[in-house]
Amino acid sequence: MDAYVGIDLGGTNIKVGLFSPEMRLVDQNLSRTEVEQGFDHVMEQIAGSVRATCDRNRVAGGGVRAVGIGCPGPVDVARGLMVVAPNFPGWRDLQVRDILAQKLGGVPTVLENDANVAAYAEFRMGAGRGLDSLVMVTLGTGIGGGIVIDGKIHRGATDTAGELGHVIVEVDGRPCGCGRRGCLEAYASATGTVARFREALGRGRPSALAAAGAVPDGITAKDIFEAAAAGDALAVETIDQTARYLAIGCDAIVNLIDPDIIVFTGGMTAAGDRLMGPVERYARERFFPRPRKHTRLALTELGGDAGIIGAGLCAQDLCETSAS
Amino acid sequence: MDAYVGIDLGGTNIKVGLFSPEMRLVDQNLSRTEVEQGFDHVMEQIAGSVRATCDRNRVAGGGVRAVGIGCPGPVDVARGLMVVAPNFPGWRDLQVRDILAQKLGGVPTVLENDANVAAYAEFRMGAGRGLDSLVMVTLGTGIGGGIVIDGKIHRGATDTAGELGHVIVEVDGRPCGCGRRGCLEAYASATGTVARFREALGRGRPSALAAAGAVPDGITAKDIFEAAAAGDALAVETIDQTARYLAIGCDAIVNLIDPDIIVFTGGMTAAGDRLMGPVERYARERFFPRPRKHTRLALTELGGDAGIIGAGLCAQDLCETSAS
Repeated sequence: MDAYVGIDLGGTNIKVGLFSPEMRLVDQNLSRTEVEQGFDHVMEQIAGSVRATCDRNRVAGGGVRAVGIGCPGPVDVARGLMVVAPNFPGWRDLQVRDILAQKLGGVPTVLENDANVAAYAEFRMGAGRGLDSLVMVTLGTGIGGGIVIDGKIHRGATDTAGELGHVIVEVDGRPCGCGRRGCLEAYASATGTVARFREALGRGRPSALAAAGAVPDGITAKDIFEAAAAGDALAVETIDQTARYLAIGCDAIVNLIDPDIIVFTGGMTAAGDRLMGPVERYARERFFPRPRKHTRLALTELGGDAGIIGAGLCAQDLCETSAS
Repeated sequence: MDAYVGIDLGGTNIKVGLFSPEMRLVDQNLSRTEVEQGFDHVMEQIAGSVRATCDRNRVAGGGVRAVGIGCPGPVDVARGLMVVAPNFPGWRDLQVRDILAQKLGGVPTVLENDANVAAYAEFRMGAGRGLDSLVMVTLGTGIGGGIVIDGKIHRGATDTAGELGHVIVEVDGRPCGCGRRGCLEAYASATGTVARFREALGRGRPSALAAAGAVPDGITAKDIFEAAAAGDALAVETIDQTARYLAIGCDAIVNLIDPDIIVFTGGMTAAGDRLMGPVERYARERFFPRPRKHTRLALTELGGDAGIIGAGLCAQDLCETSAS
């Protein structure tokens, strides 16, 4: 059979999806990235996983119409480069697209940012189906995003559009991993949420998660959500603040881009309505009247498959663009 | 001759531009809006100004191919409504487009937000010529904006994209005219700049603009810029803060939209490099590496004509869309 391949390259795992020409997910394969073994090794891991997935589904070499790969960090779409990525130490301006294409026998290959492909997947086949525009917010240890406008991925002039985590919410505020201060990510990511909770413990605030006066290591955002669900006052307050900051982020998205829907994904969305309920409430309070009525906030429908689906859709688009 | 008409509807003046089919500005006409005399009167003022401009240029009734009108405040482009606007008290969901078209003998007419048409003009014929995307920032008593992406006005799902003035820069910060707190406009507009200056005077800070301990009425942003140029320390500091906040606004634009260029217009840009120099410096410090190199910040090239030119271009597009 003919197929499209969508790849989600992460710091820990490589996920490969095999899609029918109609974009039905036929099979998927998970393998380790093993970044510590270097660029050549990772590229071979990716190619090996694609080959194995094709072989076991009897997709011959020529049967793969196109390959899409979603990569973390800023990417250079036109040249097919990973520019730099937090979990890939030392990687800088590496030619992922062409080397992968070569390893796979010259198949047409497209490289995109991973948040952009996830947004595109959600737009085409998930929570954004039938709409015109979507912004995806990825909530994990960091905060990222992807934007779809008029049905197309909006990359921006330098492929860096959608850096939602680095919108400033407090001038000269908390230090952020990016080296600046006051970014949304420094407050509302899992990391920022835990840091604010630990600071409150350090100021002597009591919590069921810590002995009096102690600031234990290893507290996670999940612990804080669970403590909040059990009624721990400091945990409730911490999550409430996270929700308020995320609402400010949604407000910036609406004031600048005004999409039909904002879709949340990533580890922190496991908290479900305990997080999204207050985010929605605070956001709607802030929105101007027309978006207050119109703009939808939703959780991902595709979850962890959005990366491979979006990469597969980009591969399909690549063929259709070349054909036309 | 055949012509396009572009109209810039403001709270004080109505500006009408008459354009050749090649979008050369042939003539323009300025008249008073006289909002206080009501909607019907304003519509007649607009139509009268268009007729007078056509007559004196020997453009017969049938010679006007299309009319574009840029209106303040949120608009409903699809239905041709002015939704609400600060300088038009009591106006709500008023049918501007169809009534104007009717008064002008049924000529094809398009209504757009005024900041959007100005952005479009600057994109097509001003500082954004030859680029793919542009964000315009209007700096006056308020802060507004217009966005052009891939050569098209980006209105957003509810026609409210580009509300740059209402991006939050300080959680629970200064009260804004919109009823919320911490909006960019509350800090960096002319109004916000004057308010911060007056507050500093009230705290006892000395300035050449006030007798010791006094907080005189009637200080304008222009006064503060002039005092800063003359070396007044408080004025220098106030303008510096304005620039820092505007840089944060530019940073939000770049992090979310990542345009090729950000163009500033409006009354405050009369200060020229005294404002734009520090805005540019602070913004570049903040930008991530790729936009730091790529993204241009510039002053308007079309100035006060951007409104009629953009409205004229929308009229031309309307004809071309209908023809194709």
